[in-house]
Amino acid sequence: MATKAIASWAVNLQPSTLPASVKQAALRSLYNYIGCAIGGSNHPTVAKAHKALSPLFGKETSTLLGHKGAKKADVQHAALLNGIASHVHDYDDTHLATIIHPTGPVASAVLAYAEYKGGVSGEDLLCALTAGIEVSCKIGLAVWPEHYDIGWHITSTTGSVGAAVAVGKLMRLPEAQMAHAIGIAAVQVTGLREMFGSDTKSFHPGRAAQNGLLAALLAEQDYTSSEQALEAKRGWANVVAGGGTPKPDQYVSELGEKWEIEANAFKPFPCGIVCHPLIDACIQLREDMRRQDLEVKDITEVQALVHPLVIELTSKRTPKDGLEGKFSVFHGGAVGLLYGKAGPAQYADDVVTDAAVVEVRDKTKPTADEMIRPDETFLTVFFTRGRELKKHIDSAVGSLDKPLTNEQLTAKFVDQATLVLGEADAKSASERAWRIAESSDVAEISKAF
Amino acid sequence: MATKAIASWAVNLQPSTLPASVKQAALRSLYNYIGCAIGGSNHPTVAKAHKALSPLFGKETSTLLGHKGAKKADVQHAALLNGIASHVHDYDDTHLATIIHPTGPVASAVLAYAEYKGGVSGEDLLCALTAGIEVSCKIGLAVWPEHYDIGWHITSTTGSVGAAVAVGKLMRLPEAQMAHAIGIAAVQVTGLREMFGSDTKSFHPGRAAQNGLLAALLAEQDYTSSEQALEAKRGWANVVAGGGTPKPDQYVSELGEKWEIEANAFKPFPCGIVCHPLIDACIQLREDMRRQDLEVKDITEVQALVHPLVIELTSKRTPKDGLEGKFSVFHGGAVGLLYGKAGPAQYADDVVTDAAVVEVRDKTKPTADEMIRPDETFLTVFFTRGRELKKHIDSAVGSLDKPLTNEQLTAKFVDQATLVLGEADAKSASERAWRIAESSDVAEISKAF
Repeated sequence: MATKAIASWAVNLQPSTLPASVKQAALRSLYNYIGCAIGGSNHPTVAKAHKALSPLFGKETSTLLGHKGAKKADVQHAALLNGIASHVHDYDDTHLATIIHPTGPVASAVLAYAEYKGGVSGEDLLCALTAGIEVSCKIGLAVWPEHYDIGWHITSTTGSVGAAVAVGKLMRLPEAQMAHAIGIAAVQVTGLREMFGSDTKSFHPGRAAQNGLLAALLAEQDYTSSEQALEAKRGWANVVAGGGTPKPDQYVSELGEKWEIEANAFKPFPCGIVCHPLIDACIQLREDMRRQDLEVKDITEVQALVHPLVIELTSKRTPKDGLEGKFSVFHGGAVGLLYGKAGPAQYADDVVTDAAVVEVRDKTKPTADEMIRPDETFLTVFFTRGRELKKHIDSAVGSLDKPLTNEQLTAKFVDQATLVLGEADAKSASERAWRIAESSDVAEISKAF
Repeated sequence: MATKAIASWAVNLQPSTLPASVKQAALRSLYNYIGCAIGGSNHPTVAKAHKALSPLFGKETSTLLGHKGAKKADVQHAALLNGIASHVHDYDDTHLATIIHPTGPVASAVLAYAEYKGGVSGEDLLCALTAGIEVSCKIGLAVWPEHYDIGWHITSTTGSVGAAVAVGKLMRLPEAQMAHAIGIAAVQVTGLREMFGSDTKSFHPGRAAQNGLLAALLAEQDYTSSEQALEAKRGWANVVAGGGTPKPDQYVSELGEKWEIEANAFKPFPCGIVCHPLIDACIQLREDMRRQDLEVKDITEVQALVHPLVIELTSKRTPKDGLEGKFSVFHGGAVGLLYGKAGPAQYADDVVTDAAVVEVRDKTKPTADEMIRPDETFLTVFFTRGRELKKHIDSAVGSLDKPLTNEQLTAKFVDQATLVLGEADAKSASERAWRIAESSDVAEISKAF
């Protein structure tokens, strides 16, 4: 039932019937994605993939973000490379209930396809994106948490299906073909958590974008799969459930009633989201230190109670470079205390190996506590001569209770894009991205990105 | 350990040290693959995929089998399309211990890559193919049977890794890059049994070929993954084990000692291998009928004791077309009794819907029995006036105890290829394929296929 129900819902979704809050959430998701993909575009991981694959490009129809239209690829490779770029700084969005980063796979596929196809309006693009994100998150909820626990990278394992739905929508596939697209995407289960900390982590959402795009392209030519691909005994949900009891029908039945995209959050810091409460606490506590004339050199120990996933996912005490730093709650806390911020600059390789940073990291002792919520932390910093400061973060900045404002999102976009495009072009790209819903052909504005 | 052990073994494998029996098994596997891919090349499933993707082809360097060099694609799409073609008639090879069809994913990747690269000798191609097949089967054994039981199509889930190893060998990747290629392939877990009976089943080995090829291309540019991709807690084996206890280290340690390619069997009938004992029994029993002047119209009931997988995989009592017929032990038995053969012609749509065939299918009653081995069956056919005939098949034709001879393989190749190329070119292709080991550049002989 789930597969056909998704197909039917997605085919019938119209921009005109989307609630305004959903449209706004979709725009914010796409805007944040574009900033992240531009920001990641000059990363060595992307460069390696580009070097490996550019000799194989087909007709170069689709923009590689971060080059203001000067670099393109065929639609499949553009989806892959933009998907990698959007995730490589771990700065993208997060559907907190599943820790899916939903926009990367879906947007990478639809943006590349929209340019290939031509004549796709901003409204239609956002509607397709919304469909894809809703589906990714619903099927993610259906297999959460065992699916993630066993080791799947849920962003890409669900993203293939979301991307297929979104591209299928731009193709205006009828329901039967849409169901087959879902099935062809569902068999391409991509992404293992073992890869966290390597180039392959960001390959996952890129490949998911390609998987979904390929599925839609095949289904458009009546390539068949199964109309019970998600819910069958040996279909996607049961096979990838990791020992849990998947509930695809239950969550799929909520499509269009409970919008997951409204629960999509944006990271203020370019690292694993589970670290964010502690980073937020450290940044805020640094203000208290200044008020009390306490200095970082006076710190004797940093204690924190954190959600267990913080330890499970980000326990690299001695990261070797910026990439490993993203998986180190020790590093995030240390730069928060030292710099009062944790932006892309604080995850540069030379900051990660800086002696002052290492010293604070070595004094940091996080403790997992089942009672702590994922967006919460209790921080205590001890100083020489028996002094101490405490900070309780109830909802970290960027959480659903304290989302980034559009102004904060703009600052994040411009901050990232400036490092790639320069400030003037970064601001111009930001302005164009905020106005994407008004475009009659999104291909026309890609050259700003 | 398994990941690095595979990388080390594969990098060091040399054509000169391969046992003669292994070389012969590799040649037979490749030969059978080429015949199957030519035979499948004009199938509608391949045509749909070609139509969907040909507008996206890059530089057309690599032969699409079945067109005598007249049709090419870029290396990635050639791997996909040849992989689909090789499996679409369900006529390919089978590693019986895991029911992996190992050559499709691996050969599709290495043949396409060899043409792209140029200057690859037949000996090196066969050595790379052997490496890929050994690795596919060893990691398959490590997760068998729970991996398959839960619903993974083990041919493609293992084939991605095998294809990566094989292409990596043609690239002469050093061990570290080979390990990363294995990791990048391992995250692309493709293929669900729910798709059996649809176009997507043969997409699986094609996509696996692409997955492995892409992994090797990325690793060649130092794209990193994990050096414990297969055996880590959240690596491939544990995540896809389907609740079983995977044993990657154990099976990988047997690489080069116990050769899986020598246990690779070739199908005499283009359908699920589990049906073969019953088909063989029906064909042989038909001879007994003729000797006793019994006719098919006299049959009242066909009873058979079969291995439980026969019922699990091929229980379509009323297949609607040739594709569904491949998953119908009822159909296989019926054409065996009616025609005395079960070749591609007996799986044509109009044979599957023929009234005489339907009549025999409707009288067929297979029973699963745990005591029956997979290559065994006990057949009893009842006739009017209380007559009956029995046939016990201990080892079906095409099984390891009764493998197809090179002459039978040749007949199978020519039989299939004739339907596509005509008889003269089919025979010429067969002769070239048997001599592939002598070639100094396999790209030179592709035009015969």
